Order: sequence, then structure tokens, then C-alpha cells
Amino acid sequence: MDVTLAIDAMGGDHGASVTIPAAVKYLKQYPRDTIILVGNPDAIHTQLQAIGVKTAQFGDRLRVHAATQVVGMDEQPQSALRGKKDSSMRVAINLVKDGTASACISAGNTGALMATARYVLKTIPGIDRPAIASYLPTKNGQVCMLDLGANTDCSAEHLLQFAMMGATLVTALEHKPNPTVGLLNIGSEDIKGNEIVKQAALLLRESDLNFYGNVEGNDIFNGVTDLVVCDGFVGNVALKTAEGVAKMMGGFLKEGFTQNLYTKFAALVSMPVLRAFKHRLDHRRYNGASLLGLRGIVVKSHGSADVFAFGCAIEKAAEEARENMWQHISEHIEKWHNQRQNTPQGVS
Amino acid sequence: MDVTLAIDAMGGDHGASVTIPAAVKYLKQYPRDTIILVGNPDAIHTQLQAIGVKTAQFGDRLRVHAATQVVGMDEQPQSALRGKKDSSMRVAINLVKDGTASACISAGNTGALMATARYVLKTIPGIDRPAIASYLPTKNGQVCMLDLGANTDCSAEHLLQFAMMGATLVTALEHKPNPTVGLLNIGSEDIKGNEIVKQAALLLRESDLNFYGNVEGNDIFNGVTDLVVCDGFVGNVALKTAEGVAKMMGGFLKEGFTQNLYTKFAALVSMPVLRAFKHRLDHRRYNGASLLGLRGIVVKSHGSADVFAFGCAIEKAAEEARENMWQHISEHIEKWHNQRQNTPQGVS
Repeated sequence: MDVTLAIDAMGGDHGASVTIPAAVKYLKQYPRDTIILVGNPDAIHTQLQAIGVKTAQFGDRLRVHAATQVVGMDEQPQSALRGKKDSSMRVAINLVKDGTASACISAGNTGALMATARYVLKTIPGIDRPAIASYLPTKNGQVCMLDLGANTDCSAEHLLQFAMMGATLVTALEHKPNPTVGLLNIGSEDIKGNEIVKQAALLLRESDLNFYGNVEGNDIFNGVTDLVVCDGFVGNVALKTAEGVAKMMGGFLKEGFTQNLYTKFAALVSMPVLRAFKHRLDHRRYNGASLLGLRGIVVKSHGSADVFAFGCAIEKAAEEARENMWQHISEHIEKWHNQRQNTPQGVS
Repeated sequence: MDVTLAIDAMGGDHGASVTIPAAVKYLKQYPRDTIILVGNPDAIHTQLQAIGVKTAQFGDRLRVHAATQVVGMDEQPQSALRGKKDSSMRVAINLVKDGTASACISAGNTGALMATARYVLKTIPGIDRPAIASYLPTKNGQVCMLDLGANTDCSAEHLLQFAMMGATLVTALEHKPNPTVGLLNIGSEDIKGNEIVKQAALLLRESDLNFYGNVEGNDIFNGVTDLVVCDGFVGNVALKTAEGVAKMMGGFLKEGFTQNLYTKFAALVSMPVLRAFKHRLDHRRYNGASLLGLRGIVVKSHGSADVFAFGCAIEKAAEEARENMWQHISEHIEKWHNQRQNTPQGVS
């Protein structure tokens, strides 16, 4: 299926200098898809010129859509929502809302993106709160995890909804019909954890999901389940802890191998191993977090993404669009609600 | 100061075969301290014989104290508390209670140890809940973190108490008079996080602690603060996530270096670097979690600790005993309560 993607060209730490080369690269790689670059037309054209691209080169597949404002990386969500109605971020989301684009991508600030997307697109019926999902590398592949920071206080019912949305995402992106779902907890036994997590386990057990049970922090990277569900506070801490450890270990290794002439020689000899190691953990490949639970597809790129990483986020958005992600979530939730209503013992 | 340590000789995955060699090694290294091995006397003497040690060799510095029961690694805390009144774990704690020993060390199950220690020793006045604190490696040293799993639901006041206990521990063990305290959150700004964390930040700001502000998951390993405070759910997830990532990365490296003849050669050449890397991250050096907030010193070793790791836990307990840890916490809390009562605007 051909897709049209709206890109917030001005968002992120590097703005157009990253988003536009990534968009052009994408258009070359996917010759049937269309990209709408949203932002300041002058800035966009200057950047296109700088990398030697003429919009005519892609015909109607590369369009520029003007937006006069830019949401700051530290701007409060409410300020962006009220004061930046013509921001590149908001206009890109508007294009999804009116059906011109089937997904949008932004490296802009997460809070503003979530608030704006929620305001413009609205949530799917049956979903109380959208959540942020992303992939992480594991020992033997990858794992999808949510919520990564959109919701700091969650009920058991919210965690169930996250699990349903996440499972639908995994099914769509990885073509796994019945992904395993783990509930992030501090022990594998049912009696472990706080009241909300215990209650969530009961709901998950009664649901139509392939619920594995509790998983612990280390299980995330052991690839025990396809999906890991948690509230946004815990998810965000776990994600950033993982990043911190990975960076620290990478730093130790680099320090060790650059200590003196001998260790530099050892590094040279070990180059193929060290390169493969770096590639396996390259977080850029996992760039692109899905804002799930909205009536439209929105993918958030890391603010500091480079061209390669931003390209990965574009690809993820395109894949979600091709798979009609949000409609699938909507169907899944509706089916579950009907099932619940028809089950006399159903949890209400 | 000479200290007497009570060791739960039967606890942990490996029981006497780890605890006793570690105890003997400790006695050789610290010729003025005393160790009381608590457990089945037959098992203890058999193990001492196996490693060629006669108790007489250490005079009165090595004693055996009989206990007929052992708490199972998966036993429920309540079952251990009610049904195992003569367990090696409980008797070791009793020796701290009656003043025979000034600290005890156990590799037994955390839940039972915490429940028993709390029941026997009681909490320090002004402390609602004991917490588990431990050290983790950072880019440039180490960081102390609590709570690591004792309390899944915490109030802001609990987090403040954890911070006070943790700061006292850091001061005692590292001789840092005014350690910096970070509050684990999902953003550095004050408006981030859930209500409890926001409230805790206010309390910490008003306290006599050196409060740095919010820290995020990655900051733990950047060594931004000397202490990181969080509830036991988040702390346990962060700790296990860190362990999971470290193990995964170590596994990737090992896989890479053992792939073929060439990479094995590279590993050989890189051996000094890889050894130093491994040493820097050796979690055994950080073994020994402090159960803080009790009227006595209790250190929990990892259940799977080896002799070296268990030795580190013994050393930590001895250090806490030498520094009169729990009395310091008690004084700190009392001082703070008096200060609060005398401040008309004090938070109540």
C-alpha cells in the first residue's frame, strides 16, 4: 500500500538539517510513497538546496506544506497547544486528522506532541489514555515496551488497555499473531508488587491476550516476552536506566581500549568484534516511539536523532500506516468490550 | 573498633559452603574482629573441617551458635516468622537484638529477612518503614540507591525518610559529610512525575539534606548524585533492568569474541582490557544490601553470592557496625523531628 507521511520538518534538536535528508533518503528507497514536509518553506527549500535536491525531482511525491511556528523543545504542552496553532508539529498532525496523510512523524518535544495529537486526533473509543510504545534490543531479538512516559499514574484498567494496544502493534509490525505479554513487576509470583499491578494481572489473565505473567527488569532484555507492559513512570525509569548502563559500559570499553599504545593495537585487532557489538546495540535502529490509542498514527523520534535514526522513525510510521494500526487497535478494543459485556462473570 | 558479627551460616543458595570460607577469610584479614557462625553445628563443623580450619585456631574470635532450622529461599515471610523461631536467620538477628553481635549478615530470602529483622529489632522511632539500600557502579565511582524493593507503595514522607537514612549511610561508609541526594523521576523539571514524587521533592527541599533535585534513570550511572531515592517498586525495576542490560551486553561481547579463530585471537590480545572491563563492572564487589531503619545492623547478601561476594557483604556489615550506623540514623531522624516541631511553617 502506498502511504503519505507528514513530517514535522522543524522539530527536534537539529530540525530541517536532519529531517529533510532523512525524508529524501526515504523517498529514494520507497518509490511509491509520498512525503509532506511541514514547516517554514524558506528553511525547507534552503535545506533541500543544501543537499542538492529539487522538489520537482520527486514530482508530487515530495510536497512542502507551510507552517509559521515551531514548538520549542522545552515548551510546556499547554503553551504549545494554546499558543502554537500553526506550528509544524500541529499542522503535521492536522494533515493526519483531515486524511491528507496517513501518519506523521515528529522529533519535537514529547509532551507537546502527545497533548497536541490527543487534542487534534482524539483517543480511540474505549481507550482512556494514549501511551508511548517503543522497541528495545534483547538477547535474541527485540521487545516492545509501553508505556514509556505518557502516564505517570495508571489504573489496572489502563495497563490492560496498554497491553491490548501493544499486542496489536507487535502483531502488525512483526506479524506475530498472538504475542506474549509480560507485566513488569518486582517478582514473578502473583503476590508480588503493588495493588494496581496485582489487579492488572487479574484483568490480563481474563483478557483474550496471550498473558505470560509477571516479568522483572532483567527479563526485558532476556526476551522473555514479545511485549512488556508497565506504567509510564516505571517504563521511563527502566528505559533511561537501560540507556545509562549501556552508555556507561560503552564508555568503560572505550576507555579501556584507548588507554595506551598496546590497548589501541588490541582495539584495532578487535575492530570487527567491536563494530558488530556496537551495531547490535545501536539505539538508532530502535528510534521511533509509537503514540498508541489515538485515532491516527503519530510516531515520535528522539529529539537528538541523526539522519539514520530519523529515517528509522519514518519507516516505522510508514509500516504502521500500511498496517492500519489504529483501526486494528480500535477493532481489538471494540471486540473485547463486546466480549466483556456478554460474559456474565466479566470484570466490570 | 573491634566488632562481633553474627553470620547466618545456612542462608543463601550455597549455604555453609560459601558463608564459612568467607567468614574464615574475613577473620584472617581482620585480626581483632569476632564472628559467630549461626546454624546447624554439624554442618558448620563439617564445612570448617573441609577447608582445614579448626575453631581453636581463632580462639574466641570464631564461635558457633546452634540453630535448628533454616528458612527456605522461597518461603513466605509470614511462614518464616511464625514457624521458624529457631532458624539460623532469626537466631543471628536475635544475637544483634541482645547485643551479643553488633551486626548480622544473611544470604537468605529477602522477604523473610526483612520481616524477621523488623519483628525482632523493631524500627527506629520516626521511621515508618525500613528500606533496602545498596551501591551500584557509576561512570566515576559508585552511587547508593534505595529503596530497592522493600516498599512497593510509598508516601512522600517515606521517600524523605529513605533519603535521610541513605544520606546517613553514605556519610558513614564513604565519609562524605553532606552527600548529594537525587530523587528518581522521569524528568529534571519540578512539574514532572506523579503526585507522590512531586510532594517528596517539596519535603526534600525543606529538609536539612543536600537535595540536588530530580534525577532520571540514566543519571544513576552518570554519578550525578551520591544517593538516589525512589520507591521500592521503581528501585527494584531499575536495579534489575541495569543487571539485565549489563548481562546482555556482556553476553554480546562474549559471543563476538568467541565467534571464530580470528575473534578468539582478538580476545587473547585484548585480555588485559577485557579483564579490567569485567572487574569494573563486577557486581560481586557491590554485594551487601543494607536493611536501613532498624534498631540494629542487618546486611543482606545476594542469595547466589560466592565466597568473594559474601566477603564483601561481611565487610559492609562490619563497616556499618564500626560506624554505629543505626544510632546515627536515629540521631538524624530525631534532630529533624525536633527541628520540624520548632519550625512554625514546617510541613506536618
